[in-house]
Amino acid sequence: MDLPDVQGRELFSSYNLSRVGVKGIKRPVTIHRPGKDVSLVPSIDVMVNLPAQQRGSHMSRHVEVIHRAVDSALDMENDSLEAFVERIALSLLESHEYATYAEIGLRADYFRERTSPDGKAVLENYVIAANASVRRGDARPLRTIGVEVSGMSACPCAMETVRKLLSEELSEGGATPEQIKVLDLIPVPTHNQKNRVELFLSSTDGVMMDADELIDIVERNLSSPTYEILKRMGEARVVLEAHRRPKFVEDIVRDIIDDLLGSHPELDDDVVIRVRSVSEESIHKHDALAERVSTLGELRVGSRHERT
Amino acid sequence: MDLPDVQGRELFSSYNLSRVGVKGIKRPVTIHRPGKDVSLVPSIDVMVNLPAQQRGSHMSRHVEVIHRAVDSALDMENDSLEAFVERIALSLLESHEYATYAEIGLRADYFRERTSPDGKAVLENYVIAANASVRRGDARPLRTIGVEVSGMSACPCAMETVRKLLSEELSEGGATPEQIKVLDLIPVPTHNQKNRVELFLSSTDGVMMDADELIDIVERNLSSPTYEILKRMGEARVVLEAHRRPKFVEDIVRDIIDDLLGSHPELDDDVVIRVRSVSEESIHKHDALAERVSTLGELRVGSRHERT
Amino acid sequence: MDLPDVQGRELFSSYNLSRVGVKGIKRPVTIHRPGKDVSLVPSIDVMVNLPAQQRGSHMSRHVEVIHRAVDSALDMENDSLEAFVERIALSLLESHEYATYAEIGLRADYFRERTSPDGKAVLENYVIAANASVRRGDARPLRTIGVEVSGMSACPCAMETVRKLLSEELSEGGATPEQIKVLDLIPVPTHNQKNRVELFLSSTDGVMMDADELIDIVERNLSSPTYEILKRMGEARVVLEAHRRPKFVEDIVRDIIDDLLGSHPELDDDVVIRVRSVSEESIHKHDALAERVSTLGELRVGSRHERT
Amino acid sequence: MDLPDVQGRELFSSYNLSRVGVKGIKRPVTIHRPGKDVSLVPSIDVMVNLPAQQRGSHMSRHVEVIHRAVDSALDMENDSLEAFVERIALSLLESHEYATYAEIGLRADYFRERTSPDGKAVLENYVIAANASVRRGDARPLRTIGVEVSGMSACPCAMETVRKLLSEELSEGGATPEQIKVLDLIPVPTHNQKNRVELFLSSTDGVMMDADELIDIVERNLSSPTYEILKRMGEARVVLEAHRRPKFVEDIVRDIIDDLLGSHPELDDDVVIRVRSVSEESIHKHDALAERVSTLGELRVGSRHERT
Repeated sequence: MDLPDVQGRELFSSYNLSRVGVKGIKRPVTIHRPGKDVSLVPSIDVMVNLPAQQRGSHMSRHVEVIHRAVDSALDMENDSLEAFVERIALSLLESHEYATYAEIGLRADYFRERTSPDGKAVLENYVIAANASVRRGDARPLRTIGVEVSGMSACPCAMETVRKLLSEELSEGGATPEQIKVLDLIPVPTHNQKNRVELFLSSTDGVMMDADELIDIVERNLSSPTYEILKRMGEARVVLEAHRRPKFVEDIVRDIIDDLLGSHPELDDDVVIRVRSVSEESIHKHDALAERVSTLGELRVGSRHERT
Repeated sequence: MDLPDVQGRELFSSYNLSRVGVKGIKRPVTIHRPGKDVSLVPSIDVMVNLPAQQRGSHMSRHVEVIHRAVDSALDMENDSLEAFVERIALSLLESHEYATYAEIGLRADYFRERTSPDGKAVLENYVIAANASVRRGDARPLRTIGVEVSGMSACPCAMETVRKLLSEELSEGGATPEQIKVLDLIPVPTHNQKNRVELFLSSTDGVMMDADELIDIVERNLSSPTYEILKRMGEARVVLEAHRRPKFVEDIVRDIIDDLLGSHPELDDDVVIRVRSVSEESIHKHDALAERVSTLGELRVGSRHERT
Repeated sequence: MDLPDVQGRELFSSYNLSRVGVKGIKRPVTIHRPGKDVSLVPSIDVMVNLPAQQRGSHMSRHVEVIHRAVDSALDMENDSLEAFVERIALSLLESHEYATYAEIGLRADYFRERTSPDGKAVLENYVIAANASVRRGDARPLRTIGVEVSGMSACPCAMETVRKLLSEELSEGGATPEQIKVLDLIPVPTHNQKNRVELFLSSTDGVMMDADELIDIVERNLSSPTYEILKRMGEARVVLEAHRRPKFVEDIVRDIIDDLLGSHPELDDDVVIRVRSVSEESIHKHDALAERVSTLGELRVGSRHERT
Repeated sequence: MDLPDVQGRELFSSYNLSRVGVKGIKRPVTIHRPGKDVSLVPSIDVMVNLPAQQRGSHMSRHVEVIHRAVDSALDMENDSLEAFVERIALSLLESHEYATYAEIGLRADYFRERTSPDGKAVLENYVIAANASVRRGDARPLRTIGVEVSGMSACPCAMETVRKLLSEELSEGGATPEQIKVLDLIPVPTHNQKNRVELFLSSTDGVMMDADELIDIVERNLSSPTYEILKRMGEARVVLEAHRRPKFVEDIVRDIIDDLLGSHPELDDDVVIRVRSVSEESIHKHDALAERVSTLGELRVGSRHERT
């Protein structure tokens, strides 16, 4: 049957569109990493731009590209999530011949075995994300790899005020100066809470990092990581660790930046970093947040990781 | 124009339906309480049952009932949310002559002025909920009034283990027994977090309670209420209060029940209570929860509020 | 170190709790079905009741039970999701010696290959759910298996009114009676939309059904299933199928019940069914819904599937 | 009591932060428009940047600024939401003397009375949003006003293929050419669904538009607006209107742009527009979307609204 080409029709008056596509596609994907297979169930969005002359964007092609990419991913060895999204971005440009720009974003639950302070192996839950965008003619897509990590933050400010208050109370209660000195030796109560950190790196080339390494950087810069199973002693150790490393959302973002610059001097200056820490405040009904978006080059200037 | 009655058509083979209706209707509602007007923007669900002989349920009538009820609410003095939902439930039965059962549920943000530990007036955010359900022939609908309150819980178990660990550390560090005794005089760190409590009461008659009173009962049985604005000293006071009243989710549910039974002996034995406490664990990625659903009569038996 | 048993402490005044546990645990699970492995990433809730004498519920045991069950699931052949949740429910009672009731619920994305009207194999996305609850001393837990399926519903009522209006318009426009007769031969426009159906079956014993079979029953009783990839001709065929089977939410629920009773006479009378159809109305901002909760026995009485 | 200034402490190694603040604050706000008061319950986010030398951001000041702004809004006549967020942005810079950048975003349910095709007055639900951001020294904040509108889209492509298929079917069924011609006189079935449109305008000065006008522009460029209450005839009229104006997501975005350019030639070239249309596809499980972000100046070049 000869069907009318409704999408291809010319328009009396039209405008370029920044992005046209589909979102919320779910499909299981298996990535063959060296030594292990990673199975993900991502939610995927794919889009291309649309020139003024083209009425519609052949939406079914978007989904076909994803299905083909997933199928071909199954056949490749030593693959990576970055390579997977790059392949989809390039493939989108091939299938949408009228487009000059394509992008893909995906987000999935991700699991890693961690050792709890009780010495037990526990499977912990993270989110892994990857994006790629490309303009026709570009040598390489801009690829982003990122993680979302939930951990614990303890407030340094409230801890100091509590210390002051406890010192006054002990003094009024007849405690000796020797006894009150104990307050300087121990962590005292403060508010602590779930802290959700996002860490994303974007680059058109250069060494991209492994998601596991990003998770490690986030976890070691929270007041403490969290664990799905904690026995009594493990609980106490997590609480003490968090109270010995009390941190504002501001501290967490800065410490992650500082750690990344120090541990990864090989990353190019034009890599873009986005770090966000959201504290689900236990003493408020709202959340607190801090964020930095920057090139690594800009962050290095004037820092102790300045390149010379 | 003579329209075919598609909803009223007879069916070859059919089944009663438990509920048919619409959900997610948003409409501003003003309730005239003695002394103040309460403005709410609830999300509303309304449903009736449907006998086997009736094909469809005239969906537009559901929404019309809500609109009429909201309009008439504007004209009434000394109204209440319970009266509002009762009126809608009865009105649903009137408009759906084939139905023998009707129900309505609504849920809205709600605000109250509280005084923070810094002595400041702050507007705090709660959720208020009301339901009514009625069977044709019943004297009175079953009405439910409820609140959702966010506050703070601090874990009593981790606090005791932390105290033990700190005691050992101080001892190993050369502290004197007199100094170590300080640990018994002060609250030590534990994990604390947002705790979301739901408290609902259902009854066909008897004295229903004010939502403000329900919020008060919840807030005084958390480790501490929370506040949108806290200066330094207020923060420390909230932290100290929470650490002096450390509570499991189980404790919060039981203390709310005990408080309600003690402060409201006038409530009938057949009032049904549902209390749920969800702790957004700062040391885990998952949540902890405790819940009790019961008649007040069953709770009173064997308790210190037993009726004699 | 000798730790104080905070959870085991006696309470001055206490109350039984209906359920205490953890929710929102995510863990990958692999079920070995005959002929294929099914990989899921469920969100899991587990709970037990708590007698008045017990202060706390040893929360870490809940998560340990899940981890042990997942690990043991990996070793079993010919397993099922129902067997998996049953095992967890029984294991919860074993680990929580003070509890007399335990329950587990899980929910996960699920994928199946379907053939689109274009003749292509497409992977479609569903939700699979399973619950189990057990009282100490019961021979068998109550097990529930369910699915959530998204498809298409087209409104039969608007279609008839549109047919009337078009007939009048054609008549006024000078069309011949022969031409106007065409309106009785074709489906005319109506509003259609995403329809989300939930179908759950619960039973303590008897033949439980496969989730794939539940999905099939739902899909064949919607106005039409939906597909992730549709070429031009496939789109038109889905649209036409939906408009030739226009259905209210009420029809969808009843047709699913009728289909299940007819195709599965072996299911026991005391199996409980819950069917819910939610239509994301394209002509309203709210949703429409219909639901039936019943035993199969009650549904069979007076129906064409009555047992004799 | 003399409290340590934890937030003000110098840092060994630090980095500027792009934004630090609080999010998810809910507070009722009343805007006094000429002729009517608009009551909103927005969710509000406020943030400032943070120089490298400053450890923390005095989070409580963020919330205080909002509370003061809401209180002062109550005293002003002829106010607007744009003026309200502008005042908050400027006030944030005043309270955070170390910051050089401040931003606020708010989002709230909004209601307007519309007349349904049945001729009835119905209150319809929209979302209104407003943002402001400012750099210290800027003459004026950048202000954004936006709306989210839910309506109906009907697919033009499937309609044409359906027409072809119906034509073939009628022909095979023995219909006369005269009868088949009817298919060219009437709209035939296609898939239609909820379509969610966002329309945002940003500008540092120039005439900002009323949210009601933005809603009008969106609603007249959908296939059809939707209504909370529709009687039988109203339903059919909405369905017919939508099928006589079938539109892709791409068409909706372009038609909104074209309408805005044509009806508002007074808007400056440097006003930035963002239009997004998301179709909750009734024939797929995923959504389709189109978006344009641009200055009005760029859109005018080469269009029929080009300035000469």
